[in-house]
Amino acid sequence: MNILVSGATGFIGTHLTSELRKQHRLFILGQFDGDPEKLGLPGITMTDDIRSLADYIREHEIEGVIHLASLYLAAHTPEQVKDLVSSNVYFGTAILEAASLAGCVKWFLNTGSIWQNYNVKGSEYNPVNLYAATKQAFIDMAKYYREVFGIRFCTLKLCDTYGPNDTRRKLFKLFKDYSESGEVLKMSPGEQKLDLLYITDIVAGFTHLAEMLSDGTELDDEYVLTSGRQIPLRELAELFTEVSGRRLNIEWGGRPYREREVMIPWKGKPLPGWKAQVDVEKGIQLFIGQSAQ
Amino acid sequence: MNILVSGATGFIGTHLTSELRKQHRLFILGQFDGDPEKLGLPGITMTDDIRSLADYIREHEIEGVIHLASLYLAAHTPEQVKDLVSSNVYFGTAILEAASLAGCVKWFLNTGSIWQNYNVKGSEYNPVNLYAATKQAFIDMAKYYREVFGIRFCTLKLCDTYGPNDTRRKLFKLFKDYSESGEVLKMSPGEQKLDLLYITDIVAGFTHLAEMLSDGTELDDEYVLTSGRQIPLRELAELFTEVSGRRLNIEWGGRPYREREVMIPWKGKPLPGWKAQVDVEKGIQLFIGQSAQ
Repeated sequence: MNILVSGATGFIGTHLTSELRKQHRLFILGQFDGDPEKLGLPGITMTDDIRSLADYIREHEIEGVIHLASLYLAAHTPEQVKDLVSSNVYFGTAILEAASLAGCVKWFLNTGSIWQNYNVKGSEYNPVNLYAATKQAFIDMAKYYREVFGIRFCTLKLCDTYGPNDTRRKLFKLFKDYSESGEVLKMSPGEQKLDLLYITDIVAGFTHLAEMLSDGTELDDEYVLTSGRQIPLRELAELFTEVSGRRLNIEWGGRPYREREVMIPWKGKPLPGWKAQVDVEKGIQLFIGQSAQ
Repeated sequence: MNILVSGATGFIGTHLTSELRKQHRLFILGQFDGDPEKLGLPGITMTDDIRSLADYIREHEIEGVIHLASLYLAAHTPEQVKDLVSSNVYFGTAILEAASLAGCVKWFLNTGSIWQNYNVKGSEYNPVNLYAATKQAFIDMAKYYREVFGIRFCTLKLCDTYGPNDTRRKLFKLFKDYSESGEVLKMSPGEQKLDLLYITDIVAGFTHLAEMLSDGTELDDEYVLTSGRQIPLRELAELFTEVSGRRLNIEWGGRPYREREVMIPWKGKPLPGWKAQVDVEKGIQLFIGQSAQ
């Protein structure tokens, strides 16, 4: 298949493209500061010129799009609202507009977040933050292209993700850094549960869904990639210490919970035919080992 | 009440502000090409400086926002996608962000469209066009501000609107212009039904909902302003001829139906405590009479 990937240079993107390229022809789309080929893949720099993107899609007979690009902000400032809307609502819409013009795109795999469903039981929408709201807003925009042009569209909602080469300051990165420096790590009281997925499982989920989108399997509008385990933050710290043999000096309650802290991750419908293979104990080993290399 | 109105210089906006200003202190917000006071109302020009807008809202103790501003496009080109998202998703979000910063805004009256619900029976979302998709996307952005800051939010969905001083090329304007020129008016086969509301009824609906938002009446997320009558286009042409005494030379089928032409307008939940007062026969009289002045 010829697949266009947005956000290919991000954490998930780099892992996913290095796997997908073994079987498919990949083209990448993003803001590359002038060098779309730094991943060694052909690519196009995103501009507001939707017709040029459509030409590129047509020329390379793109069948599917995997849309990973996103501006992730746990909290935003007023100055960031415009960028959030532009990156997370407009950018994806522009890709869909180009895809509809090109005429050859059959499916679009979108990336969502379980933060779109704060404290809800069913599938009700309630955003944890403005970032999550932009994720939902983009799905609304996409509905138009699904209905009018029949593009198959499915959203894969992610829980917390981790793995080597993650530049984001996420949990295990913090643990690793503070276990090395020996400094006191101030954390919230730590009762919140986390659903953590290792990068190879995430890559497998995207690959599997892309195949189902391509082969015409009947699909729901969205699925969740979940580890199936929800572990309190304090317990994760203990696991990290046990598995890594490193010491952590954590001041629990040293900072307050975040506003709208997710205490229990949302459980949606898991992606059928896929299951997490790497439990968190194994994942910590891999994370420590591969990060150290 | 101190109310901020966006889109005050548009068709509905000019009529609504001239009514509302009798009882409330109005402030207007928009892109005024340098003259926010051309309606004779105090106002602020919209920029990306959300903090300045927040200061303005706080300084004038704005209690409610009526959000009419919208980029309306029945069909769009690729070049217009960015403007659609910016005008219809970002702009309203920026107002809500400013309102949340200011802290004094209690309610937000949003304007929607029955085009958000193409060919559906219930309240399911299915956009007629990309314009309608942006309307839905904004509502999902607003959900964040409702949940986090408790701003009361209600969407008033509009059907077709008409009245004097409408610069849009809508139905009765076309009929009027072609009845004067005597030219042949090419129309679709004309079987589609329309739900047409006269401007004074629309103004009354907005005013009524603003009062309910302000006085704490329990409200649903959205209501529809509907005339209660759905009249086929061909019949509307006959009515126009009868009421106005003018002749129309229409070539029915002279152009095809629009893609996703709405054949039967969506019926949502009508605004409680409000009812259309001007039937279409009376409305045509008023339209012809007042437009002639």
